[in-house]
Amino acid sequence: MSLIVQKYGGTSVGTTDKIKAVAEKVAKFRQQGHDVVVVVSAMSGETNRLIGLAREMQEEPEAREMDVLVSTGEQVTIALLCMALKKLGQDARSYTGGQVKILTDNAHTKARILDIETKAMRADLDQGRVVVVAGFQGVEEDGNITTLGRGGSDTTGVALAAALKADECQIYTDVDGVYTTDPRVEEKAQRLERITFEEMLEMASLGSKVLQIRAVEFAGKYNVPLRVLSTFKEGPGTLITIDEETDTMEQPAVSGIAFNRDEAKLTIRGVPDTPGVASKILAPIGEANIEVDVIVQNLSADGTNDLTFTVHRNELTKAKSVLQRVGDELNAREVSGDDSVVKVSVVGVGMRSHAGVAATMFNALADENINIKMITTSEIKISVIIDEKYLELAVRSLHSAFDLDKVEAS
Amino acid sequence: MSLIVQKYGGTSVGTTDKIKAVAEKVAKFRQQGHDVVVVVSAMSGETNRLIGLAREMQEEPEAREMDVLVSTGEQVTIALLCMALKKLGQDARSYTGGQVKILTDNAHTKARILDIETKAMRADLDQGRVVVVAGFQGVEEDGNITTLGRGGSDTTGVALAAALKADECQIYTDVDGVYTTDPRVEEKAQRLERITFEEMLEMASLGSKVLQIRAVEFAGKYNVPLRVLSTFKEGPGTLITIDEETDTMEQPAVSGIAFNRDEAKLTIRGVPDTPGVASKILAPIGEANIEVDVIVQNLSADGTNDLTFTVHRNELTKAKSVLQRVGDELNAREVSGDDSVVKVSVVGVGMRSHAGVAATMFNALADENINIKMITTSEIKISVIIDEKYLELAVRSLHSAFDLDKVEAS
Repeated sequence: MSLIVQKYGGTSVGTTDKIKAVAEKVAKFRQQGHDVVVVVSAMSGETNRLIGLAREMQEEPEAREMDVLVSTGEQVTIALLCMALKKLGQDARSYTGGQVKILTDNAHTKARILDIETKAMRADLDQGRVVVVAGFQGVEEDGNITTLGRGGSDTTGVALAAALKADECQIYTDVDGVYTTDPRVEEKAQRLERITFEEMLEMASLGSKVLQIRAVEFAGKYNVPLRVLSTFKEGPGTLITIDEETDTMEQPAVSGIAFNRDEAKLTIRGVPDTPGVASKILAPIGEANIEVDVIVQNLSADGTNDLTFTVHRNELTKAKSVLQRVGDELNAREVSGDDSVVKVSVVGVGMRSHAGVAATMFNALADENINIKMITTSEIKISVIIDEKYLELAVRSLHSAFDLDKVEAS
Repeated sequence: MSLIVQKYGGTSVGTTDKIKAVAEKVAKFRQQGHDVVVVVSAMSGETNRLIGLAREMQEEPEAREMDVLVSTGEQVTIALLCMALKKLGQDARSYTGGQVKILTDNAHTKARILDIETKAMRADLDQGRVVVVAGFQGVEEDGNITTLGRGGSDTTGVALAAALKADECQIYTDVDGVYTTDPRVEEKAQRLERITFEEMLEMASLGSKVLQIRAVEFAGKYNVPLRVLSTFKEGPGTLITIDEETDTMEQPAVSGIAFNRDEAKLTIRGVPDTPGVASKILAPIGEANIEVDVIVQNLSADGTNDLTFTVHRNELTKAKSVLQRVGDELNAREVSGDDSVVKVSVVGVGMRSHAGVAATMFNALADENINIKMITTSEIKISVIIDEKYLELAVRSLHSAFDLDKVEAS
């Protein structure tokens, strides 16, 4: 008999009928002899409805009161799910974040979990009850309600699994696992049976929005086996585990092709080649709360510097006006922006031991005459910035070049 | 500077605009130098929406989970009201029942308040904050959320006023006070400046649904000055106080005319005149969870007994079938029911010292040829059961007979 933490997101509990379906799924696990702790989000649409009400009150609603408000969303779901379970004859008990209690710091609307009390949950499990916990929320030292920020229910699930030393944390979503790339772009995309936390982090941050990055980090840190699977379709999903459990030698060099359409590129040319110039350029961008992704710096033939970096496409105008100001101060030759670029990446822990991955990647793109505008690499990822019109072509040719079309789904 | 507890019901906070209006009202009191604790209900319709969701899950939803569910209604309102207050520049802080904490017994959906902690609220008030508390809810010893049952927000207001030793508990409703009778029946009805707790109890239980009976009892017990006034219309409302504060000698004998349209009358005739016969008749009614209101028993000319009592009109069919069974067992001559009766009452602490009230009442009804079917009296109330077609006529003639048309509103 194992202890499983299951997390169901807003879409999975979006209607009373869907909540009943989740109850049946949970009850079945109990009948198979597993102890089950369920984490649920607010019914889809509810959090946005509440935020809408708040905005009618105050343009920037007070963070403490925002947490009091939006935390009601999950509180509704836990009660309804417990009722549905009881209706099926399965005893169950609901807990708000404060009742568990999930202790957090006091950073309202983006709190971090500090500690979780497991005593009450264990007592319920020992009595054969299903424990249903409100995701996304906690309580700080002084008893104020906090929330973990959008999507934080994944984090609640993983944190509970870690605290309870659960055998597995199952994240139910509307996809049936993690794929080698987005099936909407490459229909040959294959569901991965396993993926490492590190790979998942790279895949997630690059746009495969299956899981909250924070939840994956958390799972990796506490070594909680994480499984992504579908609420609506039977199947084993994708297991996300630490590297040790997989045999790196046997593993393909590349696990997947990720991409991000939201990139925009900024370039500043002809700035003096003096120490600290990169910081002079990027510090004002950071001060304007603009996140920078890829950065490339090169010395020009004339001895001045060119610096290129990417930001989220929505921030291009803001970033460009900051950069223009900096450019004037530094007597830069030119400041330019380009919002028609995308990032494509190959990800895989296997590439650590396969020197040829970069060569294979660049060759595959060259074969299709796709010009690479920027390159950036990490230990388990190589990313290129290319013209957005080549996105689909690049993803498909890389998917094929790394033999991902043939990955066998279990 | 005084400490005022204000309670706003569901209609008063039914929309975001109405919540903003309440915030302005509250902020104005603060500006006048008063300390203010506000108790709010769920936005009108919200509690019913939540109950509807629960019923989709379970025919008789689990009481503990019901409380988890419906308590979210007030939690939404406290957050929104605090935001609206902050928007006006008035610092405020929200508290759920559990956060205050309002300690109750564990009778879910109908819990009773045992104790209230005032320390945190006092600290907030000392810092110039408005304290906003979720009505209708509390927490029991083990940290489970409880609710006080429908309309319990009035009780929360009174209980907080008692615990904080507030100078006044103001209950804001959609009427501007307590009237000598229902203005829809008698347009000459006058707003009472004052009324005693006892009178208010009789008025409330007789259908003047301005205040929760339980809240009035609570206010009387802890001697909390209670004021009923309108959210939407300026005015002093009606102050509900203990008898001592008013000069009984100066007071009119009768404060108001109450009535109840929901009565139905049941009669059982010709049962043996033996000790315990009334109990044999009424016990099965009580066991069927039917509440009995007025009871009259009379010895007939033939030495057998006739017993007549009233129940809520909705329960007539059920009560009659129980009574039929009892009648068969007792060899009763006849069992009959009548759902076209109403109860009209004159209420007033002044009648204790005015023997003539009953005579005046019966004369006034006789003058209009209204036949009295039953009479029942208490220390500060005389009620008659009459045919429902005479209701309006009876109320108007009694209103005039006791000079209530001339009560001066302050």
